[in-house]
Amino acid sequence: MQRRTFVQTGLSAGLLGVSGLSARTRPAQAAPAAHPPAEIRLSSNENPLGISPRARQAILSGMADANRYPQARAPLIEALAATHGVRSENVILGAGSTEVLKMAVEAFARPAGRLVLASPTYEDAEWYAGPGNLEIAKVPLTPDLAHDLDAMRKEAVSASGPVCVYLCNPNNPTGTLTPSDAIDDWIASAPEHVSFIVDEAYFDFVTDPSYHTALGWITERPNVLVARTFSKVHGMAGIRLGYGIAHPDTASRLRRLQVRNNANHFALVAGRASLEDSEFVRRSIAVNERGKRIAKDCFNDLGIEVLPTHTNFLMHRIEGDLRRHIVRMRERGIRVGRPFPPMLEYNRVSIGLPEEMERFAEALRVFRQSGWI
Amino acid sequence: MQRRTFVQTGLSAGLLGVSGLSARTRPAQAAPAAHPPAEIRLSSNENPLGISPRARQAILSGMADANRYPQARAPLIEALAATHGVRSENVILGAGSTEVLKMAVEAFARPAGRLVLASPTYEDAEWYAGPGNLEIAKVPLTPDLAHDLDAMRKEAVSASGPVCVYLCNPNNPTGTLTPSDAIDDWIASAPEHVSFIVDEAYFDFVTDPSYHTALGWITERPNVLVARTFSKVHGMAGIRLGYGIAHPDTASRLRRLQVRNNANHFALVAGRASLEDSEFVRRSIAVNERGKRIAKDCFNDLGIEVLPTHTNFLMHRIEGDLRRHIVRMRERGIRVGRPFPPMLEYNRVSIGLPEEMERFAEALRVFRQSGWI
Repeated sequence: MQRRTFVQTGLSAGLLGVSGLSARTRPAQAAPAAHPPAEIRLSSNENPLGISPRARQAILSGMADANRYPQARAPLIEALAATHGVRSENVILGAGSTEVLKMAVEAFARPAGRLVLASPTYEDAEWYAGPGNLEIAKVPLTPDLAHDLDAMRKEAVSASGPVCVYLCNPNNPTGTLTPSDAIDDWIASAPEHVSFIVDEAYFDFVTDPSYHTALGWITERPNVLVARTFSKVHGMAGIRLGYGIAHPDTASRLRRLQVRNNANHFALVAGRASLEDSEFVRRSIAVNERGKRIAKDCFNDLGIEVLPTHTNFLMHRIEGDLRRHIVRMRERGIRVGRPFPPMLEYNRVSIGLPEEMERFAEALRVFRQSGWI
Repeated sequence: MQRRTFVQTGLSAGLLGVSGLSARTRPAQAAPAAHPPAEIRLSSNENPLGISPRARQAILSGMADANRYPQARAPLIEALAATHGVRSENVILGAGSTEVLKMAVEAFARPAGRLVLASPTYEDAEWYAGPGNLEIAKVPLTPDLAHDLDAMRKEAVSASGPVCVYLCNPNNPTGTLTPSDAIDDWIASAPEHVSFIVDEAYFDFVTDPSYHTALGWITERPNVLVARTFSKVHGMAGIRLGYGIAHPDTASRLRRLQVRNNANHFALVAGRASLEDSEFVRRSIAVNERGKRIAKDCFNDLGIEVLPTHTNFLMHRIEGDLRRHIVRMRERGIRVGRPFPPMLEYNRVSIGLPEEMERFAEALRVFRQSGWI
């Protein structure tokens, strides 16, 4: 029995809960065909726990009103305002934080403005700048993978029209932090025509004491928007709910650009319920820490370089072709992250459940034995 | 006991299922306080039946994947394509058909174009034209409440830039039809820079044999988009799902303007399940017919003018101030439609369940006795 076959068999048995039956005793060739292991998704920085039990209950209760246009917008906005110590007028909702990014790019950079962002970073802000024919200035990260704020500032200064600066902190796909104090310094000294989107999608996973939110700016500065999401620590990626917090004038401008009734009924009721479920949030963070540890231990064992992370994903070095690596993982039933040019020597892997990370680690070990990484 | 008090008491008992207890025997003043009747929504053209049982089941089954970014886009698009005899490349999804309208107005009228639409008609197309500073040409309906296509055509011809024509057929809020053949004639002769959004949100309620969809145009003409929704006959207004069908080139252009992941996971799975539930669609239409009959009989009894309708709502004449009428209905626990200027002598009422329409009819009779209508 070859090593690779054994691993597949053992894993499929384990995943399907055939715990009383030793994988070794089962026919090696039959098991994968009869019980192909469920594909695991370590590709999109989702919460492997699912949604909060309270969110689930809210959806069940909300089923009776699913035929009505969404009615529960105000209560969620009030809950979000209370959570962040702001007022309802500061809060805008989106069908995912991606819609908030869309509104912000349109409000801040149009017409004929410039979008300044890191390379690599989360792709959506650049995507939304596309149809408006905006100038796009992509600035490589620093050697320690922070946003290069000095270089970005130069791009902002040299623009003739409005400027929208997109700062993803922690940054996706690298998982790394840009010093909050340095961001504060820039915001403090920026002229009015330079606006900032600070995307804090991974805020809840950060433990670094030097990190802080940019929310402190929104009362005084109409040129700052903070974006947050329910897709990560709240596990609601499929339900589509995100929000932005900004000065009331800015919030009004952005709201005018949203899709009407953009947050669906289930998103509104589940979001509110999940906000109250601090136990679920704690568990999400704890499970993430466990999964991260398993992956990091494996990277260390194998001597694979991995970037420091403050999120629910890891960026690790790949030897050889990235796309081939992704396909090989897929062939083992593991979806890992997409390529993030120009970092094509690295792969992003999202943190799944501990047993999923064991499976990922096992795959890495097999790849090493095959000389692939 | 006054007539008005009796009606409220009787209704609250009935709605709360206190069927064994005669409303007459209960203390008149206590009942409304202890058991205020549930507010009924006859305000937003929703389906009073709720969602399809199959949609409900799909949501329950889909709960396990609510933490994942929406995965079920392709199967829904394929099902929609099969339903309409088109290809997947013709179909675009929206978070409600309102997002499809947004994309279409942006794609067809920008930059510096003109939106031509009826007055009154559904408000969203005009709303989305707002931030782009487009020219807006509002053309009054004909005396028989069809779109005035001749007058609209003149507005299209006189424009210097691109033109987006919005045709809501049947029209909201009037419920009336514009002859399909006349729309065809215009589309057949229109130049390329004149594009058409044909909003067929209420398609499924139409029985008039002269009515037909504009879908026949989309293969040949890139300047035609047909918008449909799951909010009406499918009862999914809260779940946010709509779609557009257009030439592949047009569909691609519009898709570029959508919010990424705009249709949520529950919308995708429930929409697909509801498409297969023809029994639910039939029942929705039948219940609508029953409710419409109750309202029409009451309008006839009271000699109140009501417009012919081909939808799930009715537009009826109001004597006196419309806003006061809306408030008085609200005070009786009935939400009716908002004002649709310039038709401020009419109120729109959505068709609810038969018992809800009985309650609405009873309110009208009380209003008549009070000399209010």
